[in-house]
Amino acid sequence: MVDSTTPIDWLVDEHPQEECGVLGIYAPKEDVARMAFFGLYALQHRGQEAAGIAVADGRGIHMHKDSGLVSQVFSPERIASLKGDFALGHVRYSTTGSSALSNAQPFLIETQYGPIAVAHNGNLVNAAELRAGMLRNGMGFSSSSDSEVITMMLAGAPGANWFERIKNAMQRWQGAYSLVVLTRDQLFAVRDPWGIRPLTVGMLPTGGHAVASESGALRSLGCQAIREVRPGEVIMLTNTALSVAQALPPAAQTALCTFEHIYFSRPDSFWDGRSVHQVRQRLGQQLAEEAPAVADVVVPVPDSSIPAAIGYAARSGIPYNDGFIKNRYIGRTFIEPTDSLRKMGVMLKYNVIFENVLDRRVVLIDDSIVRGNTTGPLVRLLREAGAREVHLRITCPPIRHPCFMGVDMGTYDELMAHRHTLEEIRQISGADSLAYLSLKGMKKAIGREEGYCDACFTGVYPFEVNAHTAKTGFEQPAGEQA
Amino acid sequence: MVDSTTPIDWLVDEHPQEECGVLGIYAPKEDVARMAFFGLYALQHRGQEAAGIAVADGRGIHMHKDSGLVSQVFSPERIASLKGDFALGHVRYSTTGSSALSNAQPFLIETQYGPIAVAHNGNLVNAAELRAGMLRNGMGFSSSSDSEVITMMLAGAPGANWFERIKNAMQRWQGAYSLVVLTRDQLFAVRDPWGIRPLTVGMLPTGGHAVASESGALRSLGCQAIREVRPGEVIMLTNTALSVAQALPPAAQTALCTFEHIYFSRPDSFWDGRSVHQVRQRLGQQLAEEAPAVADVVVPVPDSSIPAAIGYAARSGIPYNDGFIKNRYIGRTFIEPTDSLRKMGVMLKYNVIFENVLDRRVVLIDDSIVRGNTTGPLVRLLREAGAREVHLRITCPPIRHPCFMGVDMGTYDELMAHRHTLEEIRQISGADSLAYLSLKGMKKAIGREEGYCDACFTGVYPFEVNAHTAKTGFEQPAGEQA
Amino acid sequence: MVDSTTPIDWLVDEHPQEECGVLGIYAPKEDVARMAFFGLYALQHRGQEAAGIAVADGRGIHMHKDSGLVSQVFSPERIASLKGDFALGHVRYSTTGSSALSNAQPFLIETQYGPIAVAHNGNLVNAAELRAGMLRNGMGFSSSSDSEVITMMLAGAPGANWFERIKNAMQRWQGAYSLVVLTRDQLFAVRDPWGIRPLTVGMLPTGGHAVASESGALRSLGCQAIREVRPGEVIMLTNTALSVAQALPPAAQTALCTFEHIYFSRPDSFWDGRSVHQVRQRLGQQLAEEAPAVADVVVPVPDSSIPAAIGYAARSGIPYNDGFIKNRYIGRTFIEPTDSLRKMGVMLKYNVIFENVLDRRVVLIDDSIVRGNTTGPLVRLLREAGAREVHLRITCPPIRHPCFMGVDMGTYDELMAHRHTLEEIRQISGADSLAYLSLKGMKKAIGREEGYCDACFTGVYPFEVNAHTAKTGFEQPAGEQA
Amino acid sequence: MVDSTTPIDWLVDEHPQEECGVLGIYAPKEDVARMAFFGLYALQHRGQEAAGIAVADGRGIHMHKDSGLVSQVFSPERIASLKGDFALGHVRYSTTGSSALSNAQPFLIETQYGPIAVAHNGNLVNAAELRAGMLRNGMGFSSSSDSEVITMMLAGAPGANWFERIKNAMQRWQGAYSLVVLTRDQLFAVRDPWGIRPLTVGMLPTGGHAVASESGALRSLGCQAIREVRPGEVIMLTNTALSVAQALPPAAQTALCTFEHIYFSRPDSFWDGRSVHQVRQRLGQQLAEEAPAVADVVVPVPDSSIPAAIGYAARSGIPYNDGFIKNRYIGRTFIEPTDSLRKMGVMLKYNVIFENVLDRRVVLIDDSIVRGNTTGPLVRLLREAGAREVHLRITCPPIRHPCFMGVDMGTYDELMAHRHTLEEIRQISGADSLAYLSLKGMKKAIGREEGYCDACFTGVYPFEVNAHTAKTGFEQPAGEQA
Repeated sequence: MVDSTTPIDWLVDEHPQEECGVLGIYAPKEDVARMAFFGLYALQHRGQEAAGIAVADGRGIHMHKDSGLVSQVFSPERIASLKGDFALGHVRYSTTGSSALSNAQPFLIETQYGPIAVAHNGNLVNAAELRAGMLRNGMGFSSSSDSEVITMMLAGAPGANWFERIKNAMQRWQGAYSLVVLTRDQLFAVRDPWGIRPLTVGMLPTGGHAVASESGALRSLGCQAIREVRPGEVIMLTNTALSVAQALPPAAQTALCTFEHIYFSRPDSFWDGRSVHQVRQRLGQQLAEEAPAVADVVVPVPDSSIPAAIGYAARSGIPYNDGFIKNRYIGRTFIEPTDSLRKMGVMLKYNVIFENVLDRRVVLIDDSIVRGNTTGPLVRLLREAGAREVHLRITCPPIRHPCFMGVDMGTYDELMAHRHTLEEIRQISGADSLAYLSLKGMKKAIGREEGYCDACFTGVYPFEVNAHTAKTGFEQPAGEQA
Repeated sequence: MVDSTTPIDWLVDEHPQEECGVLGIYAPKEDVARMAFFGLYALQHRGQEAAGIAVADGRGIHMHKDSGLVSQVFSPERIASLKGDFALGHVRYSTTGSSALSNAQPFLIETQYGPIAVAHNGNLVNAAELRAGMLRNGMGFSSSSDSEVITMMLAGAPGANWFERIKNAMQRWQGAYSLVVLTRDQLFAVRDPWGIRPLTVGMLPTGGHAVASESGALRSLGCQAIREVRPGEVIMLTNTALSVAQALPPAAQTALCTFEHIYFSRPDSFWDGRSVHQVRQRLGQQLAEEAPAVADVVVPVPDSSIPAAIGYAARSGIPYNDGFIKNRYIGRTFIEPTDSLRKMGVMLKYNVIFENVLDRRVVLIDDSIVRGNTTGPLVRLLREAGAREVHLRITCPPIRHPCFMGVDMGTYDELMAHRHTLEEIRQISGADSLAYLSLKGMKKAIGREEGYCDACFTGVYPFEVNAHTAKTGFEQPAGEQA
Repeated sequence: MVDSTTPIDWLVDEHPQEECGVLGIYAPKEDVARMAFFGLYALQHRGQEAAGIAVADGRGIHMHKDSGLVSQVFSPERIASLKGDFALGHVRYSTTGSSALSNAQPFLIETQYGPIAVAHNGNLVNAAELRAGMLRNGMGFSSSSDSEVITMMLAGAPGANWFERIKNAMQRWQGAYSLVVLTRDQLFAVRDPWGIRPLTVGMLPTGGHAVASESGALRSLGCQAIREVRPGEVIMLTNTALSVAQALPPAAQTALCTFEHIYFSRPDSFWDGRSVHQVRQRLGQQLAEEAPAVADVVVPVPDSSIPAAIGYAARSGIPYNDGFIKNRYIGRTFIEPTDSLRKMGVMLKYNVIFENVLDRRVVLIDDSIVRGNTTGPLVRLLREAGAREVHLRITCPPIRHPCFMGVDMGTYDELMAHRHTLEEIRQISGADSLAYLSLKGMKKAIGREEGYCDACFTGVYPFEVNAHTAKTGFEQPAGEQA
Repeated sequence: MVDSTTPIDWLVDEHPQEECGVLGIYAPKEDVARMAFFGLYALQHRGQEAAGIAVADGRGIHMHKDSGLVSQVFSPERIASLKGDFALGHVRYSTTGSSALSNAQPFLIETQYGPIAVAHNGNLVNAAELRAGMLRNGMGFSSSSDSEVITMMLAGAPGANWFERIKNAMQRWQGAYSLVVLTRDQLFAVRDPWGIRPLTVGMLPTGGHAVASESGALRSLGCQAIREVRPGEVIMLTNTALSVAQALPPAAQTALCTFEHIYFSRPDSFWDGRSVHQVRQRLGQQLAEEAPAVADVVVPVPDSSIPAAIGYAARSGIPYNDGFIKNRYIGRTFIEPTDSLRKMGVMLKYNVIFENVLDRRVVLIDDSIVRGNTTGPLVRLLREAGAREVHLRITCPPIRHPCFMGVDMGTYDELMAHRHTLEEIRQISGADSLAYLSLKGMKKAIGREEGYCDACFTGVYPFEVNAHTAKTGFEQPAGEQA
């Protein structure tokens, strides 16, 4: 049931929720806040709940953050008031902690070494233990976010300079963290040794450097010489060169998030040196080989499944076509249909294109099934539009395990493939046939056997995880600010 | 130059701007304002500047309208405050008149016969004359919209009842008008005798009827038995049946807007009984026949050109693929790039997918070229990404004449194909080859020789047009409300 | 009962509500919108519901208006966007018509002679007839305000220039109207022949002139040579001089509103050439003579009764002191006490100063009793604080008749002194004694026997009034915009 | 010069700025958030910059705070969302720290013992040292407020329960603190051993108790049995009784703020068991004796000097009258006069009542002169209105020393009486004569020789103060959130 105070995001679907996009810019003499605005705009798909920008001018840090889309949070006056040489940006979709404003990022605090601001993408699996220890030491927390734990640990970490303090704090962090850290005159990019979440750096055309969760955002800023921050690296962005240090050795086995390929990243981004759009096409091709269907048309669930559907169609020889129109007009609203309207079949997000599926045998390509709320209604829409058969094909293996590294897959109880057999899922979805891509096939399509995290498919986590404390980080915050 | 008080809509491109979507609902006992909200949401692509809903409860009319997206203009409290059996809705993109709030619709006035509210899609070509006459008679106007002229004329039209008054007013209107008219206890759908802009009615599943600019919106509301309002018809929506009258005879030659097929309508809508998505596919197929290319990949300008690109690819045998990613996160902002950022190549709306075009010969499908601002940059993006050749294919003929029937094509001076030869356009765009679909081919793809308005291609208007007064209706308003 | 959508204005009390303050400025080369902002700020006591400013620059008129206090409606950006040589301003408290935004002023319309904007203070008693006639002629109205009737009549009035059109329209207006009229290059001040509501003009120190409802606002702008606009006058403000014309002869018997002295005007304003503060002191002195009391302290109901209490104390020799503290923090809120909180005696607006009344015999001075909601609670507060006796003294005669000239006194049924005898009112109020100032005494204090309207005391209206149509002007609007 | 991003509060004058009002309510079964709203409304004069309410329901704490007046910060929906048995409220005017939202109160943090929220009025003179120590221990601060230091120290204080932890933290605090502390199921009132700032408790008529900065707010809530929290006391509010403990012994010499009598408190409040209104009258009487004048009228600077002017008039026999009208319409605005408008003499806050001072010898009573920005213009207004003589009388001694206990008197350099002799001040003000009340006379009027802090007059602080660190608590925050 939807709480009356929860906005309904028409475009939030049953996909796993990515929590964040991060961004950093060092571009002396440029309008860094404006650049950060455009960079965050290119990362908006990674989080629509809140946005924030902090800038440093050598003497201090100024910040603005609020709930809403980047374009809603920032006015020209706000951007103009944020002057400096360094910028830090963040877009957020809540995972741990409540979605309250107090969890919005960046986190900005005053420390004994001056102010620092932190933008974080990921999730520490030992955040609850770390936080409990700090509470026992008499500290107070103003939010329930593990990113505040990270920020507070940086304030108290030993070390002669910020690089050393970051390095020392990293020793104690277990889990996923792609960070951008801003001091009054330095900007750092930090990635965990497992390389779980993406982070890339590039050179700005007019001098200076930028760091962002995805290469697509760096390209939007005109960056060249883009490369990933390597697992365990700390990079200080300077005007002329990157100052790179391997703060922690990379994990023996890295654990890059497979789901960046399956769903999260923009198709024009690179992940692990691979074009996301091309990986998705290969996932479709591989699926066509593993799970062919006798059909008349291949139809994607827009927009995420389009590349895979193109690949499936190309490999199978079955024509590709649109089957659904997705309403593009994003906007959070608190208005929801009444029961009566629901019964009338009010369709808000997807409309079917009748003529493209009428009397056809349809292959429906979806990138994944997580909680399973969307698939059934889409199959039903196709049937009501006159599709003769619907063959559901999923571009990854069944998701049977939660993620503790920053992706909100839901709990075991919520995962469709944990609760049900494939045949049950087929029946629930109403499809004539259902097939998932095999783990092996997925890896083949990605083009690499090792180095990725497959925990949501296999339950094999890259490190030990205490499922009781890791998921939400710690118990629900008793103090909460609206 | 962009005025500092003008919001920048990142998704407004050089397409012609449709001015409006209209909606009416008669559903006693249902929450008609909520239904109107969802219906407008499905019409949002027809206007993002302002939205409004008026409801009637048998005794009076209550209205709320404001600038912004439907989801921004209406809160649950607003919807809850609008109670009644009838609803009228409107989404607007400005054509005539300024974009000020005072031009937002519906227009609601008190008349000698009680209140009426009007939602209008179209443009009267004789609005300036009509308005001048009313001004001479001592009337005042609070906006510069021809829709206010329409509303005021209804207030003063002779006739024993609203149907007669509407019918009498129609005698004097020259141009495009698809109207929904709400009184305190009646709801009318009205379409001009030329049938220029679309208007459809359908039966609601729980009783009552609805009228909307597009069938796609009626489908979103669960409507069945959808049919178009015929040219010259006035339909009164009732609970049990439609009360239909042919107020004016249909024009000897109807003038349905071709551009609804080319660009405006949702792909899942029908226009003139034809599936818009399928017409667009056929435009692509026809284009493949008329203007083949030796190439490796067919790439659409998303989203409007996707169906045509699918058709071009299917007919030509050249594989279809995505070439661009379009940023989905709509949001008006007043923040624009600095010159320095522009030089850096900040890309806000489209990013190219390098790997899909690198070292390939690309067919780029675009639905139309109006002012020509978008095409060149897109071709350049492809080249910079390593495309070997770019063959630009346009799914309609060159647009050489302005529209005076409610579509903002710009003036003669702004129209690329009015100012330049095809070879010049090719050079400006930077493409290796350029071809437009022929008028004959376009008609063939649509499937009908006659009955459409081709004025923007041919200069042959469906009726006499005074180009000096018709375009903006009348001179710029000297009084303006922000 | 308070509707849940009605804001509660903590400082709205049972006083009659004045509907408006008007303002006009002609000051070439000055920032007229900013001046209008400050002028309206000084008129804010005359209306807190909505505010608006229109400016003219010789070519057109630009306007902004909205609900709220002047300081809430106008931001620096808004003020900066309103450029011109002429400004028109309005603050509003609703009388006729609903309080909806559509009734906010100024009214701005396009006419055959260009745009005009009108700000109106007063009420036409024949508005309903005039409006009905215009409706019959086929006009539509977008609000229920008689000010829109005035504006529309100006649009249609015969005459070779605006002065003539104003003059001609005035022939047909019956009732109270102090107007400021702005065209694209002219500014007029207009006052009805009865001189019912105030209107004053003055010379700005840097050149140009200003007009305002009260001299206090002109003084705030630094004006000199302030004089009243005479009954029936139309004055055109120019840069160097006032262009004055007697459009209509003054009424044989003028009807200046007595209540401007009693309650409405700022104490530092002049009304009818008399200092309002001094008139109020004399009202108190006269009351001390007519209705002496044996008491220890004279206490005013703040703030309006302070001058009269000073006068009463001075004449009677009984010491003056504060008895109540009034919460200054105005702000509209929708939050109201629960019944439980009401029973707890939550005091929002007035707190008593115990020590000043404890064990004393108190003379409580109030300027008037209209509906009688405030007096009783205040007397009770005094008693609970330990006052031995409370002698209530009112600085005007009993109000037994409604006002139809722009002051919301309520209907006959609502007027305390219409429904009850003096002794009943005393008992209801809980006072030990009660006395009103006599009509004769009031006139003596004002200093003039004739020329004022005493209708609310005597029922003798300055002209014939149709009580059925005059009060709200016409029946409740069936169409209403929120 | 006023920064363009600083709102101009028309009613902020040169008075010292009080930083806060605090409030706590324990009233099971009542709507405590609503009660807190009304209580804060009655404390609004103590801070107009920000407001906040936190409620506890036995399990957790929920809070809302924002910039603005109480009526602006809280909507009915907000109030309705704050459910519980305990409420904590705060209104703020900034002293230390910037005025940014991050300094708004209450402060709410999660501690090892659960959430706590703190509302603070006062200033710790050793906050900078305490904060520096905590920073050295690795803590981070998200604001520059000493109230955050207090809150964080409570989180880390030793002790088996909250009472003990509060008591232990108090040992280390030097300075002024009247606190209300809320846990998930307890509510405490805490006052420093010097009793510098006020704090009172009372019994609610329907059961439960309330605590507030001033008795006037408790009276507004209907409280009875009101008494002050004694210096050094910690009181736990319960349903049936107060649980009182003397956590620290009262200071040998208490240091009650004299300025609560002179200016801060509502006139209907009690301070140190004395009626504030009556103390102010006696200040005026004493002043009449010490500094008589031959004059025709006694005029107050409204509103704060009214009681003293009444007292001066009564004792001297010179008639009391209003000399100025103060604009009541509070509202923050960013709009300020241009230089040209300033030269025109635009008066925003005070207008003189000409007739009351014309050709008179005026005694002008002002409560204090701090920076001296207001007095001169007011004297000039009187002269321009025709006053023959102006005799300025101040109801307290010259202020020559800054306050470090929570009142923003400005720095030494800003204090008029620190920089100038009395004769200079008289000349600057333009008065014919000037007299301050003597220290001895002030104490006589208050009615008590010892126990008050006179530091701003004498420079004798109640404890040692490090003027370099105490004023703003610590150096300007380098990190700041807008």
